[in-house]
Amino acid sequence: MSVILGIDPGSRLTGYGIIQRHGRKLHYVASGCIRVTGPSAQPYSLPEKLKRIHNSVVELITQFQPDEFAIEQVFIARNPDSALKLGQARGAAIVAAACHDLPVAEYSARSIKQAVVGTGAAEKEQVQHMVMALLNLSKRPQADAADALAVAICHANTRSF
Amino acid sequence: MSVILGIDPGSRLTGYGIIQRHGRKLHYVASGCIRVTGPSAQPYSLPEKLKRIHNSVVELITQFQPDEFAIEQVFIARNPDSALKLGQARGAAIVAAACHDLPVAEYSARSIKQAVVGTGAAEKEQVQHMVMALLNLSKRPQADAADALAVAICHANTRSF
Repeated sequence: MSVILGIDPGSRLTGYGIIQRHGRKLHYVASGCIRVTGPSAQPYSLPEKLKRIHNSVVELITQFQPDEFAIEQVFIARNPDSALKLGQARGAAIVAAACHDLPVAEYSARSIKQAVVGTGAAEKEQVQHMVMALLNLSKRPQADAADALAVAICHANTRSF
Repeated sequence: MSVILGIDPGSRLTGYGIIQRHGRKLHYVASGCIRVTGPSAQPYSLPEKLKRIHNSVVELITQFQPDEFAIEQVFIARNPDSALKLGQARGAAIVAAACHDLPVAEYSARSIKQAVVGTGAAEKEQVQHMVMALLNLSKRPQADAADALAVAICHANTRSF
């Protein structure tokens, strides 16, 4: 049995998904979103945002004791500004895993879709649908949480074969 | 008296510079580079690199007990790939400061040059020269260390007026 923490980092929302793998069987444990947009009147500063992402990932590690950590690899970012923001969020999340000596695996969007849907060209809705089916969920998870669960499933399936 | 830690993050080298401010007087304390390129035979993985940056900044905070933290603001990165890498390194460094409740200040390259040389259009060599002059250094610091000292000086001068 191993517990996998999947993370889908973003500059505004960071999705997380935790699954258990027993042999070839996958079980849903938890999922959700780390919000780093403060109350609109007083938005969080960059250090506050990164601290929130980091500390939330540390809390997930402490609470769920994952054995492995999986995160989406970024090949082509849309533009330098969004790449910088995404990089900062990724850095904050990866540091939390690395400082807890969790092995960190990175998967391209294509290989995540391939592992979850069976084709690297799948639409976002198909990925969400298959995440629900593979984990026997009765409710559709929030989009970023579903992406994080997809990374975790990709890691589970890649490692088990 | 206050101690300022300046950081110039990069995906390969992260410069650091520590200065003390007594009123308007600035004193050099330490500077150097955090290297995140492993031995060529086996380069560090991304998580190892980010962990190294994070832990090195934590060590600097523990050793020198800075009161404030200053880092260069990035406005325009050259391309999405380098922006992502730079963002990850920045994230790892800023998280270290934010998790130690250090106030984080960001300065644009232009305002750093303005504060150190007196003109926002200064060349890199002029900045290095003025860092040596302002801190009474007899030896030219390594380029990234000099940039980090320049951020710290900028912060000291911005705060003192």
